[in-house]
Amino acid sequence: MATRRDREDSKRFPDDVIVEEPLEIRLDGHAVATTMRTPGNDFELAVGFCLAEGLLSDNAVESIRYCATGTAMDTNFNVVTVETERPAANPPIARLGLTTAACGICGAESIDALCARLVPLAGAVVPTPEVARAVDEAVRAQQALFAKTGAVHGAASFELATGEVGVVREDIGRHNAVDKVVGRLYLDHGLPAEGRGLFVSGRASFEMVQKAWAAGFTALLAVGGPSSLAVETALVANLVLAAFVRGDSCTVYSPEQGA
Amino acid sequence: MATRRDREDSKRFPDDVIVEEPLEIRLDGHAVATTMRTPGNDFELAVGFCLAEGLLSDNAVESIRYCATGTAMDTNFNVVTVETERPAANPPIARLGLTTAACGICGAESIDALCARLVPLAGAVVPTPEVARAVDEAVRAQQALFAKTGAVHGAASFELATGEVGVVREDIGRHNAVDKVVGRLYLDHGLPAEGRGLFVSGRASFEMVQKAWAAGFTALLAVGGPSSLAVETALVANLVLAAFVRGDSCTVYSPEQGA
Repeated sequence: MATRRDREDSKRFPDDVIVEEPLEIRLDGHAVATTMRTPGNDFELAVGFCLAEGLLSDNAVESIRYCATGTAMDTNFNVVTVETERPAANPPIARLGLTTAACGICGAESIDALCARLVPLAGAVVPTPEVARAVDEAVRAQQALFAKTGAVHGAASFELATGEVGVVREDIGRHNAVDKVVGRLYLDHGLPAEGRGLFVSGRASFEMVQKAWAAGFTALLAVGGPSSLAVETALVANLVLAAFVRGDSCTVYSPEQGA
Repeated sequence: MATRRDREDSKRFPDDVIVEEPLEIRLDGHAVATTMRTPGNDFELAVGFCLAEGLLSDNAVESIRYCATGTAMDTNFNVVTVETERPAANPPIARLGLTTAACGICGAESIDALCARLVPLAGAVVPTPEVARAVDEAVRAQQALFAKTGAVHGAASFELATGEVGVVREDIGRHNAVDKVVGRLYLDHGLPAEGRGLFVSGRASFEMVQKAWAAGFTALLAVGGPSSLAVETALVANLVLAAFVRGDSCTVYSPEQGA
């Protein structure tokens, strides 16, 4: 129960709040991350995270499962294990340190390491304002959790030419929402996502650009604004970055625009 | 330069984007975190982070400085060192692992560890809707970076009784904005922040509640919605949680409301 207070009145009402729980992601037995996420689509999240981090390379995923810890009574659904066909001899190198920013990337060296293994994308297709608006509206219409809780991020893949929306995912963490979309595409053999755009309901930080790049999207479309490092990285990636989707306009920071 | 596109037109214009750069935080010589932040108020950020993490306990801070790395030419302002009067023999235990969520907390064990050392707060003062609105408006008026870039979080301390706003800080990461506020209060000998509220321009995740609790705030006021773990943790902390600040109303999830 919660209480809504305004000038005249206080009303008690049952309130839906977005669920937030930790998920530990393991790769071939090694813990590589723990993230605060909204439960659901956890396998997509785990494999999408490993992909974006470059932890899979050309290694194929053999299985993804919840990992029982302790006795049967203790078993919960907060640990997911990704197992590959050729487990590395050494534990995967996760990004160093930890972070408290909305962006999970840790340090300049990690940034360089994440981007060094990526090659610039092939082509730039700039979404028209009509496509941007259509995608924004279509994703909002599908955001069931946002409608109930007002406190969740959305991410989606869409066709750049038509604005047709594919996978839509929601999560309390926007990075998780993106990982879930990328993980779903991977499991459906839909990567690299050339000719498609990645839509995010929030801002475009460096990490959003990096994840879009790693999955091979042609463009990133963000409702919110971009950061300096997001703009710089998009230029290096040859990734179209369109932000500030507002009604019939959006702002494009893309390679050929000389952003 | 960026290009704003709408149905009729494309306009090129110089665009202010929010700066995003990594900052490594060290405590007595040990790296404890790297965070993507908006440069500025870095000393506040470093000490506020250490406080919220429980890395200082009752140890006093002796100095905070930028740490030169390499030759003079290489010196940059992306490493800050906090030095205490009584450095621990062992490196401080930072939270395990890493995260990609908007919330930087890593794993259930870390959550328990972070909260175990905190005692419930003394009293609950619920902000009136008028106070909530006044704080929201006052902080927005002071958000210089948001006005320019549209892509930055704000945090502030305020008097619960009157709504008078104290320290206001902005950052691309909301956790950083909060750490900067807490760090400023610490440096001004203003902690614990009893009788005051912590305002955040975004949502109320677990970590926002935990940081407010660690700094001794009586209430957390969030423009966005709360997560399930935020509500649960606020109950344990006896911290007033008010969210969804909208014009003349807000929603209270606080101990005595039986949220």
